[in-house]
Amino acid sequence: MDWSLFWLVPVASLIALGFALYFFRKMKGADEGTSEMKRIAQAVREGAGSYLRQQYKVVGYVFLVLFILFAIMAYVFHIQNSWVPVAFLTGGFFSGLAGFLGMKTATYASARTANAARKSMDAGLKIAFRSGAVMGLVVVGFGLLDISLWFIILNRFDPDGLISITTTMLTFGMGASMQALFARVGGGIYTKAADVGADIVGKVEADIPEDDPRNPATIADNVGDNVGDVAGMGADLYESYCGSILSTAALGAVAFAAGGMQFKAVIAPMLIAATGVFLSLFGIFLVRTKEGATMKDLLHSLGVGTNVSAILIAVATFGILYALGLENWLGLSFSVITGLAAGVIIGQATEYYTSHSYRPTQAIAKASETGSATVIIKGIGTGMISTCIPVATISVAILLSYLCAIHFNVAEMMSAHNIQMGLYGIGIAAVGMLSTLGITLATDAYGPIADNAGGNAEMSQLEPYVRQRTDALDALGNTTAATGKGFAIGSAALTALALLASYIEEIKIAMVRALKHGHEAYTYVTGEVFDPSSATMPQFMDFFQVNLMNPKVLIGVFLGAMAAFLFCGLTMGAVGRAAQSMVEEVRRQFRTIAGILEGKAIPDYKRCVEISTRAAQREMIIPSLLAIIIPIIVGIILGVSGVLGLLVGGLAAGFTLAVFMSNAGGAWDNAKKMVEEGNFGGKGSACHKATIVGDTVGDPFKDTSGPSLNILIKLMSMVSIVMAGLILSCTLL
Amino acid sequence: MDWSLFWLVPVASLIALGFALYFFRKMKGADEGTSEMKRIAQAVREGAGSYLRQQYKVVGYVFLVLFILFAIMAYVFHIQNSWVPVAFLTGGFFSGLAGFLGMKTATYASARTANAARKSMDAGLKIAFRSGAVMGLVVVGFGLLDISLWFIILNRFDPDGLISITTTMLTFGMGASMQALFARVGGGIYTKAADVGADIVGKVEADIPEDDPRNPATIADNVGDNVGDVAGMGADLYESYCGSILSTAALGAVAFAAGGMQFKAVIAPMLIAATGVFLSLFGIFLVRTKEGATMKDLLHSLGVGTNVSAILIAVATFGILYALGLENWLGLSFSVITGLAAGVIIGQATEYYTSHSYRPTQAIAKASETGSATVIIKGIGTGMISTCIPVATISVAILLSYLCAIHFNVAEMMSAHNIQMGLYGIGIAAVGMLSTLGITLATDAYGPIADNAGGNAEMSQLEPYVRQRTDALDALGNTTAATGKGFAIGSAALTALALLASYIEEIKIAMVRALKHGHEAYTYVTGEVFDPSSATMPQFMDFFQVNLMNPKVLIGVFLGAMAAFLFCGLTMGAVGRAAQSMVEEVRRQFRTIAGILEGKAIPDYKRCVEISTRAAQREMIIPSLLAIIIPIIVGIILGVSGVLGLLVGGLAAGFTLAVFMSNAGGAWDNAKKMVEEGNFGGKGSACHKATIVGDTVGDPFKDTSGPSLNILIKLMSMVSIVMAGLILSCTLL
Repeated sequence: MDWSLFWLVPVASLIALGFALYFFRKMKGADEGTSEMKRIAQAVREGAGSYLRQQYKVVGYVFLVLFILFAIMAYVFHIQNSWVPVAFLTGGFFSGLAGFLGMKTATYASARTANAARKSMDAGLKIAFRSGAVMGLVVVGFGLLDISLWFIILNRFDPDGLISITTTMLTFGMGASMQALFARVGGGIYTKAADVGADIVGKVEADIPEDDPRNPATIADNVGDNVGDVAGMGADLYESYCGSILSTAALGAVAFAAGGMQFKAVIAPMLIAATGVFLSLFGIFLVRTKEGATMKDLLHSLGVGTNVSAILIAVATFGILYALGLENWLGLSFSVITGLAAGVIIGQATEYYTSHSYRPTQAIAKASETGSATVIIKGIGTGMISTCIPVATISVAILLSYLCAIHFNVAEMMSAHNIQMGLYGIGIAAVGMLSTLGITLATDAYGPIADNAGGNAEMSQLEPYVRQRTDALDALGNTTAATGKGFAIGSAALTALALLASYIEEIKIAMVRALKHGHEAYTYVTGEVFDPSSATMPQFMDFFQVNLMNPKVLIGVFLGAMAAFLFCGLTMGAVGRAAQSMVEEVRRQFRTIAGILEGKAIPDYKRCVEISTRAAQREMIIPSLLAIIIPIIVGIILGVSGVLGLLVGGLAAGFTLAVFMSNAGGAWDNAKKMVEEGNFGGKGSACHKATIVGDTVGDPFKDTSGPSLNILIKLMSMVSIVMAGLILSCTLL
Repeated sequence: MDWSLFWLVPVASLIALGFALYFFRKMKGADEGTSEMKRIAQAVREGAGSYLRQQYKVVGYVFLVLFILFAIMAYVFHIQNSWVPVAFLTGGFFSGLAGFLGMKTATYASARTANAARKSMDAGLKIAFRSGAVMGLVVVGFGLLDISLWFIILNRFDPDGLISITTTMLTFGMGASMQALFARVGGGIYTKAADVGADIVGKVEADIPEDDPRNPATIADNVGDNVGDVAGMGADLYESYCGSILSTAALGAVAFAAGGMQFKAVIAPMLIAATGVFLSLFGIFLVRTKEGATMKDLLHSLGVGTNVSAILIAVATFGILYALGLENWLGLSFSVITGLAAGVIIGQATEYYTSHSYRPTQAIAKASETGSATVIIKGIGTGMISTCIPVATISVAILLSYLCAIHFNVAEMMSAHNIQMGLYGIGIAAVGMLSTLGITLATDAYGPIADNAGGNAEMSQLEPYVRQRTDALDALGNTTAATGKGFAIGSAALTALALLASYIEEIKIAMVRALKHGHEAYTYVTGEVFDPSSATMPQFMDFFQVNLMNPKVLIGVFLGAMAAFLFCGLTMGAVGRAAQSMVEEVRRQFRTIAGILEGKAIPDYKRCVEISTRAAQREMIIPSLLAIIIPIIVGIILGVSGVLGLLVGGLAAGFTLAVFMSNAGGAWDNAKKMVEEGNFGGKGSACHKATIVGDTVGDPFKDTSGPSLNILIKLMSMVSIVMAGLILSCTLL
């Protein structure tokens, strides 16, 4: 085992964290502006802080319960690896820490961005973007840190070899998954309750603009951007990042079990990720702009950063895999490129379907001429059609990354060796897609910072030209947010697929463990003995009868599709309920606080913050529990084949549904913006009102239910992996 | 082969057709009312007739092309059974004829129902319901006629035995499928373009009530009810009816290939269907009501009819399968009951989620207090949550019907024999669910007749009490339509599943045929020969590697889910476009025809009818082609395993999506009705306007995209079955 190249991974992790600290310090050093600006920033910071404290308390309890459960499974019933209970906690801890730091940075940065925008556009962009980069770097930094620490520890203490080590590590992802679920669902509900509530009463009923200080929900709305779009998105991608690296390592350990390349195959995904960190940093330094920059210049500037990173990573992949001396390094490098390319294509498709520079969103804006109903119909139709390219792209990526990894040996595509190799190829494609995370997440987290800067400028009544500059920065943020969402969904799908493949390995380990603890031999119906330790993937498929004529598999697929819809329905309902109480509160304040609409009295912002916080805590429980319980129940009733059906059905339907919801929401948002820019009658016209309805409906689509599906499809796999031992020991059918 | 019991099938068919003629004659004998009523009914009849002529012309061309294609495949390349080209036409012909007669009856019945309602509620109900029964009886009559004729002919002329005969017959369903697709999609677009257009300008902009003669789109709207809800629904269920019987017969021929029971197993589904015809007729005669009947009485009256039929069919099934002397008759009878029960449960769940007697729809109505956006959010959330019970029900039905058929032998659930038997059990459950079709379709087709009667009463300005009576009949129709839709979706899912299972049989036949025509031997990668004529189902699964770790299967599942969304998106978009041109036309007439809004000038109804007709013809082509082309392309690129993935993914996602869309649409419709009944401010209030937006969005959900998915999931299986030979001979991967 040649560890020399491996050390790149912890080094990359520490460098990422170091630069995050550097960017944070530089941002903190900038001036926060007028006292009014500081006051508002402080209010948002407090709201975000109080939410996060509450949130982490709830999450803490859930983790405690699961810790005890895992401990019992591991130490009493021996149906769980003994490292899992502790490691589960570290996954959750680092994810939570990354979210906390990212959000802290964002809430410090918004007023400073607004203040810098008073000087120049470039200054504003730089502060906002580099503060976003803190989030990106913290996520990849902690991700690689957690992975390398455990890899070193387990190599020291686990005597069972790399297959055992990597599958054990895989289960650590469960902690990150759980934390991500609560962050996405809770954050999503929080932000949209505030946003929808503020829009309905503010824009539609009282006719006051966005971010107007007279609107009591406006601080909650600004807190929401940080809570949902920074902390939620960060936790989501932290999970994808770790999940894809860990599952690929596990798949590599199996695919290269024979032939002396095993260690290299295990560290290959980590090395690709580490390379990505260095080159993302390089890209981050490329992002700059000049005064008087148009939207196009700004987009170009971000595009240069991300595209240069992606291209360099593609090139460097060949180098690093060659240097590693991995068998089939050339084919696997092409698998990485497949993943990278898929990420870019999905991002472009998302932009096409959601930006009002293109026909689909323009048609939605035009539908406003016949009222809000046609805006909704058109938006839903467009969103559904927009699933086509991303799904086709992921399908092609799956096929190509598989085939690249097996030298396009189509005739023997499904041999025992090739299937393992091909699945490793799919995993490494996911790692490739996520290798640019350092910079793509920076462009994502930049969005809410710019948005909040605009809010701050509006509320502290800065000069109009400042608001214009922050508006330009914000508009850019909306585009990057849309592409970022496409990227998050695409990577979640590939990661979930890699997790799915690892599930079989986990079942294998669990069977071997069970045999060691005295389980009777596993037998076919014919009485023949099945030996899990030597069985190939096709033999596993055969033993568990995971084919499409097995009613258990079919039912699993049905239930998986249903789970995606049910989960979405619950989160939509949660936003609806929370928004309704927000609307009632804002109406109450307008009614009871005299002078509020004339700007003579200060609204009770705190009350709205509290409503969002409480609603998020209360409403996130049931959908979250569902995501955990469904795979367990299906597993207990239908067994391994049912679980695999469930995961595949949930993945396919969930991915498609997530693309539909995100794109429809993004398109409605920009159709409204298009009208606001003066088309179809402009602000205040009937068309504008119609597109506001579309935008409001789109809010939970694109910021709550859609993104939460990313977590659902990964978490269901994670839960199945962690519960493999339980399912094996008590299946009914 | 004991043919004596078989003759029940053609007898049942002829009796159904005889009673259909009897009901039609009686209805025609009733008075059509005032000259104004006659004039309006005539206009609707003409509109419907001209649509159907145009429609059948387009469909005719498509059939001609496919006929030639099938003929080439069969007679030139020998990759298709030589009976298929002709039989394909009969399936389409009988389906089209049933649609034509059903619609003819409905358009004759509406004015007569309104006129009878002047006398009494009971008289109105009887005319409307028995006219609806004409549709139900015509569908089951022609279905069984087509099946029994071909069964007799093929038994006489096909020397290859029952497996060949039944799989050949299965492909006839393709004709019914194609015709159903055009009927559902075209009809759905027609009716909603008119409805949405009429509502947007009439109700929202000009503030005139539904069915007001001043609205130029009102005749088109009434035509649409007949075109979409009568002809479309009828063709959909004709396809499910024939598809489930034929695929179950094919599965039975394989499951009972040895042991002398084969003939019995093949005719068993036909006998259950025939029994259903007799007992549906009995139920139809039970439906009656008395003057002053409340909504509850009316519902009770229809409930008695359908429930008594269902219970009697359940009981009779035991008798008929016992009399047939089929092995395992007891278990299979329980499979039938599973299907029947699933139909009832799904219907009840649909009612719960869409009727405003229950909480979900009430909550949607309440959400109107905060505007149309929250109505939409709440409706979508509710619709998504409502997928839970139907999917769970179908899942349990799949499992139970499978297990009943194999004596609950869980340990050997997937043995070669049990898998065939279990799949036969699933098929026979589908037949069981559809055995009540005679009466359930009657309650469905009743809806649009009552709706049109109301329209006729309104337009011909009859006394208010008549309109009240027709409103009560119409409200009843809305409930039965919702349950009917649930039933149509549930049966489509089970039918598609049975078709899916038969697909493997078809592949087997195609392989044997190919070998006979000189194809080289099929071999495994190892070089071992695979003999399709003796292979069992598990061996087929193994040979084609139809397991969930095969990337081709995974991609297939992804693409299947995407196909469902894409298809929905296209049909939504079609309605949006068509509705927009309708809105523009109505606005134009309001603007240019002087005195139209004062009722002094007659609007140009014809022009609106033309717009709907043309839009439907134009817009139905692309989604329809897609449903045919996707399985062919996937088959050519990914082969048999990819196709199976596609069908399973499409089925699971399509079924769930269909339930979501139908239920959300139904709930919005009734939330609006609830407000109109005086809740939340009643008619004309802000809440009313908000719920009208919901209803308008729901229109294409529940009447175009949702129901069209039923066809998609069946048609994709049908296309795969018919194209099995083509796919086998030219797969790329």
